[in-house]
Amino acid sequence: MSTDRHPVRIAVDTMGGDHAPSELVQGALLAAQEGGVQLLLVGEPAALQKELAGQDLSRWPVRVVPSEGVIREDEPPTVALRQKPRASVFVAAQLVKMGQADAFVSMGSTGAAMASAVFSLGLLEGVERPTVGGAFLGLAPTTVILDLGTNVDCRPAQLLSFGVIGTVMAQTFANIANPRVALLSVGAEESKGNRQVKETHELFRASSLNFVGNVEGHDLLENRADVVICDGFVGNVIMKLCEGLGAAISRKVAEQLGGRLPRQVVDELAGEIYQLTNLVEYNGGGPLLGVKGVAIVGHGRSRAPAVKNAINLARRAVESGFVPLLQKRLLALQRASSAS
Amino acid sequence: MSTDRHPVRIAVDTMGGDHAPSELVQGALLAAQEGGVQLLLVGEPAALQKELAGQDLSRWPVRVVPSEGVIREDEPPTVALRQKPRASVFVAAQLVKMGQADAFVSMGSTGAAMASAVFSLGLLEGVERPTVGGAFLGLAPTTVILDLGTNVDCRPAQLLSFGVIGTVMAQTFANIANPRVALLSVGAEESKGNRQVKETHELFRASSLNFVGNVEGHDLLENRADVVICDGFVGNVIMKLCEGLGAAISRKVAEQLGGRLPRQVVDELAGEIYQLTNLVEYNGGGPLLGVKGVAIVGHGRSRAPAVKNAINLARRAVESGFVPLLQKRLLALQRASSAS
Repeated sequence: MSTDRHPVRIAVDTMGGDHAPSELVQGALLAAQEGGVQLLLVGEPAALQKELAGQDLSRWPVRVVPSEGVIREDEPPTVALRQKPRASVFVAAQLVKMGQADAFVSMGSTGAAMASAVFSLGLLEGVERPTVGGAFLGLAPTTVILDLGTNVDCRPAQLLSFGVIGTVMAQTFANIANPRVALLSVGAEESKGNRQVKETHELFRASSLNFVGNVEGHDLLENRADVVICDGFVGNVIMKLCEGLGAAISRKVAEQLGGRLPRQVVDELAGEIYQLTNLVEYNGGGPLLGVKGVAIVGHGRSRAPAVKNAINLARRAVESGFVPLLQKRLLALQRASSAS
Repeated sequence: MSTDRHPVRIAVDTMGGDHAPSELVQGALLAAQEGGVQLLLVGEPAALQKELAGQDLSRWPVRVVPSEGVIREDEPPTVALRQKPRASVFVAAQLVKMGQADAFVSMGSTGAAMASAVFSLGLLEGVERPTVGGAFLGLAPTTVILDLGTNVDCRPAQLLSFGVIGTVMAQTFANIANPRVALLSVGAEESKGNRQVKETHELFRASSLNFVGNVEGHDLLENRADVVICDGFVGNVIMKLCEGLGAAISRKVAEQLGGRLPRQVVDELAGEIYQLTNLVEYNGGGPLLGVKGVAIVGHGRSRAPAVKNAINLARRAVESGFVPLLQKRLLALQRASSAS
């Protein structure tokens, strides 16, 4: 590993996200203070100058890389990238392409980050489209769930590749040696599920994955598997539902306890419930899986601590050799599939 | 309505469910005490005699109808029904068929209840398979969600019929005059969704339903629609996930507050969180939709109060003329579809 010698260089898209640029810049400075990284803050110079006013930049390994324009959530990514070729997320991805950064982080439009990554870095062999996944429940903080929304229609072979990707994720980021992989379904029995899951079940069973069968919705809370595979439609619906449900219960608990316990105790408990169900917002994001490079895409609502966490995740992905390992496993899957 | 003259006659499958027969019998007695119903307790005579020992049955409008055997959750329903033609759930359904009961209620295997209902009562015109739906979130207690697991692979036309069924449910059981109908998806925009949802979106838009577009997972908590349509795979996963998540948060809150507040206050709050996320267990169940008669299928975990609630729901469905109204609307949908 080269990281003993020089810090990991990370490009941060400071213009993307609900709280850009200020929380992005603050998060980057938090990460810089912790050390081990060198940060390229990509953004509009005037806006960044304002955010950085009063900071002694010579003290931190941080420098500004100018960009122009930002791609919003509601813009079709590929069209927007053509219209704004200097947009912050694209400049950040290009820094990785040109070898000036080892990874990039964006809290802006996931579509734009994905398009920028695919265009700039390309896809790993054996991957058709990138995927996004990871733990989203603090109540099951090491359970990797994917896809979380990037691939809403999936063929069984694609779901199998998610099984491989999830396995490498759990090994790399949760230090689980032989992760248990499951399919999300409506019953534990092999015969339960929709057409897609039933077909996929066979493929998983025949694979070299540590496949433990189907799990149901409530099993996500019960540590039945380390990796849970579903299509991006189901994954996105359940992630958003958990976030909304946790937020609603958190408000309810705060209401019910208000006046009965000191304000601080109530706020802590309500905050904990929120965090247990809104892990992505807390973690800051997850790797964009299947691209030839490290790209961390984050929650638009991320604030400085989450941005710092996302930067640390990028660092960890680079240091652990996550992308080369993933490529190796995907190639092995391809060989196994063509041999059978 | 005939109900001013005689009580609604409801057959209760006392042998189905995790706590059968005792909680089933207790729940039936609770309902009998409230009045307005006449109950046929279907079950094994010896078991029921034991449960009813000490009760003065002449005081309550309750009588026993003997059955033999019970169909378990893990038995293939149609095979089991052939092997056990006197099973409690089937006898209960047959009582409705023969005109001796106006409705039946079962907390046993949903598959067995469905097979018994379809075989005994038949399907409404315009329905291919029955569906199960209703509110499952106490945080959104009037939002009808369907399908919740009976139809895991759905064509767009089938989802449209669910829209009609959900509309009649919201009108009948939640007194909403013109229910807002939505499709569950991964984004509010028309362009967001998997292939199934995109195709279905067009059909909903062209229909006479009060279609308000797509909603996302978190919108289920925010009263964006009165009826939310999804296939039974997604519906079942999200219902079980909410139940599991609510139970886990409830335990967490109880742990955190233990010792800080009186035991009773903690138990109440934990109980409330559980109930807000496990509404089906509390309500006792929902109507089996699309069969030519009133059949209430309930949660296996139901205890006496939930059984009582399910019996009351059956009574309400009979008194409101839910099934004839549903048939009328489904026929109108068929006419509109064939005219277009």
